[in-house]
Amino acid sequence: MEVSAATKELLEAKRSKGLTFADLGKLIGHDEVWVAALFYGQARADDEESKKLVAALDLGNDIADALTEFPSKGIGPVVPTDPLIYRFYEIMQVYGMPMKAVIHEKFGDGIMSAIDFSLHIEKEPDPKGDRVKVTMSGKFLPYKKF
Amino acid sequence: MEVSAATKELLEAKRSKGLTFADLGKLIGHDEVWVAALFYGQARADDEESKKLVAALDLGNDIADALTEFPSKGIGPVVPTDPLIYRFYEIMQVYGMPMKAVIHEKFGDGIMSAIDFSLHIEKEPDPKGDRVKVTMSGKFLPYKKF
Amino acid sequence: MEVSAATKELLEAKRSKGLTFADLGKLIGHDEVWVAALFYGQARADDEESKKLVAALDLGNDIADALTEFPSKGIGPVVPTDPLIYRFYEIMQVYGMPMKAVIHEKFGDGIMSAIDFSLHIEKEPDPKGDRVKVTMSGKFLPYKKF
Amino acid sequence: MEVSAATKELLEAKRSKGLTFADLGKLIGHDEVWVAALFYGQARADDEESKKLVAALDLGNDIADALTEFPSKGIGPVVPTDPLIYRFYEIMQVYGMPMKAVIHEKFGDGIMSAIDFSLHIEKEPDPKGDRVKVTMSGKFLPYKKF
Amino acid sequence: MEVSAATKELLEAKRSKGLTFADLGKLIGHDEVWVAALFYGQARADDEESKKLVAALDLGNDIADALTEFPSKGIGPVVPTDPLIYRFYEIMQVYGMPMKAVIHEKFGDGIMSAIDFSLHIEKEPDPKGDRVKVTMSGKFLPYKKF
Amino acid sequence: MEVSAATKELLEAKRSKGLTFADLGKLIGHDEVWVAALFYGQARADDEESKKLVAALDLGNDIADALTEFPSKGIGPVVPTDPLIYRFYEIMQVYGMPMKAVIHEKFGDGIMSAIDFSLHIEKEPDPKGDRVKVTMSGKFLPYKKF
Amino acid sequence: MEVSAATKELLEAKRSKGLTFADLGKLIGHDEVWVAALFYGQARADDEESKKLVAALDLGNDIADALTEFPSKGIGPVVPTDPLIYRFYEIMQVYGMPMKAVIHEKFGDGIMSAIDFSLHIEKEPDPKGDRVKVTMSGKFLPYKKF
Amino acid sequence: MEVSAATKELLEAKRSKGLTFADLGKLIGHDEVWVAALFYGQARADDEESKKLVAALDLGNDIADALTEFPSKGIGPVVPTDPLIYRFYEIMQVYGMPMKAVIHEKFGDGIMSAIDFSLHIEKEPDPKGDRVKVTMSGKFLPYKKF
Amino acid sequence: MEVSAATKELLEAKRSKGLTFADLGKLIGHDEVWVAALFYGQARADDEESKKLVAALDLGNDIADALTEFPSKGIGPVVPTDPLIYRFYEIMQVYGMPMKAVIHEKFGDGIMSAIDFSLHIEKEPDPKGDRVKVTMSGKFLPYKKF
Amino acid sequence: MEVSAATKELLEAKRSKGLTFADLGKLIGHDEVWVAALFYGQARADDEESKKLVAALDLGNDIADALTEFPSKGIGPVVPTDPLIYRFYEIMQVYGMPMKAVIHEKFGDGIMSAIDFSLHIEKEPDPKGDRVKVTMSGKFLPYKKF
Repeated sequence: MEVSAATKELLEAKRSKGLTFADLGKLIGHDEVWVAALFYGQARADDEESKKLVAALDLGNDIADALTEFPSKGIGPVVPTDPLIYRFYEIMQVYGMPMKAVIHEKFGDGIMSAIDFSLHIEKEPDPKGDRVKVTMSGKFLPYKKF
Repeated sequence: MEVSAATKELLEAKRSKGLTFADLGKLIGHDEVWVAALFYGQARADDEESKKLVAALDLGNDIADALTEFPSKGIGPVVPTDPLIYRFYEIMQVYGMPMKAVIHEKFGDGIMSAIDFSLHIEKEPDPKGDRVKVTMSGKFLPYKKF
Repeated sequence: MEVSAATKELLEAKRSKGLTFADLGKLIGHDEVWVAALFYGQARADDEESKKLVAALDLGNDIADALTEFPSKGIGPVVPTDPLIYRFYEIMQVYGMPMKAVIHEKFGDGIMSAIDFSLHIEKEPDPKGDRVKVTMSGKFLPYKKF
Repeated sequence: MEVSAATKELLEAKRSKGLTFADLGKLIGHDEVWVAALFYGQARADDEESKKLVAALDLGNDIADALTEFPSKGIGPVVPTDPLIYRFYEIMQVYGMPMKAVIHEKFGDGIMSAIDFSLHIEKEPDPKGDRVKVTMSGKFLPYKKF
Repeated sequence: MEVSAATKELLEAKRSKGLTFADLGKLIGHDEVWVAALFYGQARADDEESKKLVAALDLGNDIADALTEFPSKGIGPVVPTDPLIYRFYEIMQVYGMPMKAVIHEKFGDGIMSAIDFSLHIEKEPDPKGDRVKVTMSGKFLPYKKF
Repeated sequence: MEVSAATKELLEAKRSKGLTFADLGKLIGHDEVWVAALFYGQARADDEESKKLVAALDLGNDIADALTEFPSKGIGPVVPTDPLIYRFYEIMQVYGMPMKAVIHEKFGDGIMSAIDFSLHIEKEPDPKGDRVKVTMSGKFLPYKKF
Repeated sequence: MEVSAATKELLEAKRSKGLTFADLGKLIGHDEVWVAALFYGQARADDEESKKLVAALDLGNDIADALTEFPSKGIGPVVPTDPLIYRFYEIMQVYGMPMKAVIHEKFGDGIMSAIDFSLHIEKEPDPKGDRVKVTMSGKFLPYKKF
Repeated sequence: MEVSAATKELLEAKRSKGLTFADLGKLIGHDEVWVAALFYGQARADDEESKKLVAALDLGNDIADALTEFPSKGIGPVVPTDPLIYRFYEIMQVYGMPMKAVIHEKFGDGIMSAIDFSLHIEKEPDPKGDRVKVTMSGKFLPYKKF
Repeated sequence: MEVSAATKELLEAKRSKGLTFADLGKLIGHDEVWVAALFYGQARADDEESKKLVAALDLGNDIADALTEFPSKGIGPVVPTDPLIYRFYEIMQVYGMPMKAVIHEKFGDGIMSAIDFSLHIEKEPDPKGDRVKVTMSGKFLPYKKF
Repeated sequence: MEVSAATKELLEAKRSKGLTFADLGKLIGHDEVWVAALFYGQARADDEESKKLVAALDLGNDIADALTEFPSKGIGPVVPTDPLIYRFYEIMQVYGMPMKAVIHEKFGDGIMSAIDFSLHIEKEPDPKGDRVKVTMSGKFLPYKKF
């Protein structure tokens, strides 16, 4: 789970400017998670988005270029060791078959797209302890019969 | 991703009765995904829930017992090969670090619980193709400093 | 790369009837590869397709049911040892990055769907040795910016 | 999925010159996918091809030498995490056995060569969303009985 | 099991100052194990804790910053080769199922949190050879039925 | 994480008799965790212990024999998927190096034995949620210099 | 490295008849290694070869059928534990790069086919200890430039 | 399949001098494959051989030293991705059990040594396409009964 | 670490007869470890040894046959989970490179044979706790320069 | 199987001084294997031993410090590819279960310690080829019943 030099520079600039992912998201009209994905080399900006971001963060052209490249995606380790990320692995291990069963019942044979896809994270205040709400929305893709 | 004999019996009874996971969920006051988790040996019912389910499905005591056991959870294969389940693995690979960054920004050092946790699946009608909406809500657990 | 009891019965019936995958494909209006995928539990038929196939193959209702179930897909072994199947793994290893580069140049950031997807196999006669022609067609899915 | 220094230089020169893989392919009489394979160190040029490419890209002799070396092929990670490349892994997982069955039915015991092999990528315009068409052609190699 | 540059600097400063983890723990009001976790990039200090530590160790601001970052946790190797660390892996292999059975009997279906969690290490003098006493205390988290 | 036929019989007899691991532990003078380890084939009883247990559980000689055999220990899966057991894997991943550092500071180069070892589990009542207390005590084994 | 029921029957029949692989090879005009490959489900006979073999071994039609099926090839374990087979893995590990260098020097970029391939084993008498001579002959396949 | 700095220097010197592995083999009285093994750090020269080689290649003492060190052998990746090297892995997967069966039939229980071992590569001209002939000769080592 | 049916029968017969591996070793003139290797399918007896053993253990011809077969050797799991066996894995991990360095210093480039090899286990009485003494003796095999 | 900078310096100094591991062992009163383990970062010296060694080898304080640090032990690769080290892995694979059976028969349920442990290597002259004798002595640790 190493991060690139560009990611480090982006994160440091963001910290020194005191900006949040949400601030930067508003700037370019995207969700904070998408901005974080861009920082970690998991998404690709167009030229306009890239310029706005490096301007706001006082960074150079090399970073602007890095943001518009087609990234090789994925963190690498087959089973993540970081506890926060592992919980999403665990959800796949424990709820993978049940989700498959319910999605098939509701939609038929197919999958939820992870490409035509969005992911939002909200803080749900709760007196017993705040909650993390993750909302995923992916297009259902039915298996084509050929 | 083999399923147990009890799982097979439960799925066949559900099919022959023409019941959905949602129908069974209403019967015992739980979400359809939780019922599916129970069918696949990933959750544990209490005696009352178990009796109601086997009664509705015309199944025997051995199934009732299976539903109240403490299951060993997880599907097994380290990287799932089933495309539907793999997409959740891919989301962890691609969006794991970005989710970690945003959750830390919003909550501090900690994790989203996968135990004090719920998961719902909805069908979002969309003219460009219906969408699968997955909503997860997990308690934020801050790292205890000891 | 074990096959299920249903797969074995289907393959034996096909052999004893002297039918090809193409013959069965014509019967239900699908490609021979899709029929083979169905035999190996990698695709799902509807009731009508299923009935036609078991009728043509003189098989029972249990096979008809098996054909309409939602299968758990994938052969399992992480790196296939069978030489024919391995070559497709090798193509991914050797041509994966080049294909990514060309697809990105032609289409932008996104993927070729393996769900809204078809695959055909043809025999190309060639005096220096016949050739296997594999044609894949998958919908391009651009990454959604959210 | 790290790329070598030579690959990076080649990609940057191509970008700054505004050339496509197809432009470079025309220059040396090869397919754009083969040129991309050469850029990523998965194929080997002869001296003439190498010289033409470095001339067109204004690069030095070290790059010319790199293009004519015998490369160690393969991207490395056993299961690719990049979603575009993973889909080809998934196709092997899901359609590997069906392809084996159809190829054996059409040709007998043997394999499709991944060496005496070509791979083309086309954009198929489609009102419901453009499609990626991948055409592979590999010599059928029957198992020699010795 | 590589350690970062920051970890090395911290360990060297601690050695040259002749301080123990317990000394540093007293300084900031935490257990020596937590301080060691901080040194190895497995926990996160707040600004006050960080400043006190770098002051006591005569280290610079870059180390203070490193201590307040959100670390990616976990040592990495799937099965640790270091004999001391391996013994904890072995305890999980040998006593994992028995612990699960006893925890379920005492608490019901759920887990011991590794986040709302503390870990202490004591030296138990023993004439037959001193003993290592490890005390873990984690909040029991019952599975939420949703 | 499959369990043997003997384990299943032992667990069913215990359930039908309404006995706890602690009840059985009292009977033979051992900790409940050790009894659970015995049930799961991770420890070995002597003849007297074995006879007392099968008598209390109304089981046959084959079970008595199984309890006195030298078991092959370990649950098998390299990374456990069960969330309760995984947390102990995570503790090793996250706190492995810190524990090593503290044990070395307190004891010198060596390990905590997992053989001359005991493990107890207690329920700590807590108004904010009961806690699982795990106490391990292992003999410190200094590396012999030869 | 499990063998199928058919393999076991073939090996037992061969032993009880006192026949060698070479005897059976002469019967059908093939090398003893090829016959052994057939026995272990790694090659495929035609009907005539199959009939001759089952006649010589007094076996039934099911075995004749098994010999003419298209086998899924490969022993399975990624790294073989059997010492005899491991040595061939070791030869690949130690001499893989040197063989690649020499083959490229002699032939150019390409591979030795493992399909248009034969393998013979001879006993070389030697006063210092007999030697195993393995001769492989595979067609050189040059990489096609497309 | 990274190569060391010494390997790179050796290969470059050989190329710039226009020498083949066979030329260098003649110089020191060894097979070209052994020389390639030496270049790739898989074998060890004595001082005389080392001096002759660096003299012929105009290289320095550091290279001479590198050639006489005891190398850690093996290319590393568990399953090689390079197609040429993979074919030897495939031969082990497909023909491993048949070779074991034939060697046992001819020699009894034991192995072919990969240490008291030689390997030669020849080009067999063939009108249908030249062939690679690999001849291995390893001492048969019978299992010692102790 | 599953054992075969033959292994189970052999171990049960040995136990019911009250014989040790050493008793059986004396009967056939071999070390107790070799007899244990034979029981676990890791060695091969000749007909005479086999007959003596089954006679002493009152077992049938099928066991006699099993003892004279060429076994596929190795326990299977890549990293053993059983603590006793793991310690030998750990010795290889920790002392592998040091042993290589000392053997090379004493013998030159080569290996200790694990085939022309014997292994003995003795109990060394020691007031501080008895010790296990393992003596291995393997022929040194120098790398052949070819 | 990479070695650290300190290991390389130690090995070079030893070579340039013409010293053996045994020479250095005599200097500090330890076995040559232990000295080699120290060189490879698998053991830990005290200050006196460390000073004597760097004095004899004319090395600096940084090396003296490196020798007294608590090393992270183990070579890393799960299955070693170096043939000499692999043979010890093979011995564990082939003789692991037999050793377990004999140790249990002689000692009861427990293990041989790899910590309270010594390992010696001797050269046994033998007219048929010298032999490597490896003697391991580890304290038997009986499983504590708690």
